[in-house]
Amino acid sequence: MPPTITAFRQSPDRGRGLARDMPVRWALEEVGQAYDVRLVSFAALKEPTHRALQPFGQIPTYEEDGLVLFESGAIVLHLAQTRAGLLPADPAARARAIGWMFAALNTVEPVVWDYDMTPMFERDKPWLDARMAMLAARVDARLRDLAARLGDASWLDGPFSAGDLMMVSVLRRLGGSDLLAAHPRLVGYVARGEARPAFARAFAAQRAVFEAQ
Amino acid sequence: MPPTITAFRQSPDRGRGLARDMPVRWALEEVGQAYDVRLVSFAALKEPTHRALQPFGQIPTYEEDGLVLFESGAIVLHLAQTRAGLLPADPAARARAIGWMFAALNTVEPVVWDYDMTPMFERDKPWLDARMAMLAARVDARLRDLAARLGDASWLDGPFSAGDLMMVSVLRRLGGSDLLAAHPRLVGYVARGEARPAFARAFAAQRAVFEAQ
Repeated sequence: MPPTITAFRQSPDRGRGLARDMPVRWALEEVGQAYDVRLVSFAALKEPTHRALQPFGQIPTYEEDGLVLFESGAIVLHLAQTRAGLLPADPAARARAIGWMFAALNTVEPVVWDYDMTPMFERDKPWLDARMAMLAARVDARLRDLAARLGDASWLDGPFSAGDLMMVSVLRRLGGSDLLAAHPRLVGYVARGEARPAFARAFAAQRAVFEAQ
Repeated sequence: MPPTITAFRQSPDRGRGLARDMPVRWALEEVGQAYDVRLVSFAALKEPTHRALQPFGQIPTYEEDGLVLFESGAIVLHLAQTRAGLLPADPAARARAIGWMFAALNTVEPVVWDYDMTPMFERDKPWLDARMAMLAARVDARLRDLAARLGDASWLDGPFSAGDLMMVSVLRRLGGSDLLAAHPRLVGYVARGEARPAFARAFAAQRAVFEAQ
């Protein structure tokens, strides 16, 4: 039995691949692991059946032989630690690659998420423009630091890893924005991630959910 | 040579143990690993010497036999994976415990951080009160879900793990707030974490930095 993941039944981003099943699908494709998908409606997310798998009522979840996992970062790390293809063999390089996963999720994503979601959550607030300027400056500071570390390398630390997979996934939320465009090295970095065949397969799979609506 | 971590030279929270060296110190104490600390001034954080270790100019970092790590989550996970005491032996239980680390850092911390930091970052803004009400509601939703999952258990999934260490560390930022007090199960959970001898040693060590100022 292949593992089963959950994803939104109604794509909230119209198939742009920004929901959190996308990095999990991408990781599954990178390691060559077939998988099943169970689609969950927004209403069903909050039901006890789903909360038994995901206490915060979110997607994705991951079920495999009695193991139940949630949190996209945890699922990607589990796949990377149990299959070849997403982490280097050398223990120090492996620890550093995992470090980039945490940097993506705990240092870069919170500011990117705020910048991306605030126009929706606070669209009717008189302070929206003033706050967006603050949030843009916060994102830009992170991107500047990240671009400086990346330099002219293809990936953050040697070959493509689960760290790059998570970082590209986070940066995709800024795709097409002036904020990202101001950092050509990061534009190239995201493009390299999106050019990977495993990314393309994962993207097409989540897009098919939207197109079938 | 024991590993060396970095911490703030000037404690920004007056020794309350909310800076990110605290979970790393706590993990080091839980696994019984001696360590050295190098204190870094706010100015030095942004210097090339420190940025070579930490590209975003933050603390903590971790250096050991040529390995350099940053991100408190990554350092705690590295300690948990290379020493006994913070992760169960069973692979499925181990994956779930690591899942709680990601839940702490990517699902709970972003909303807690916003709630805790906004009064400082936006203290002079006319919208502060209105936003704080929104942020409190977001935190409360997470706490409600977390308390429901914890139930009457002592820890989130079996014995104390690195997942509990990170979750308690995140919740401590709400210590003494009405938001946390509204969830007695979580108050008890944080108190159990703080009662651990390893926590007490780590807390005293970071407090000594403040008291020496």
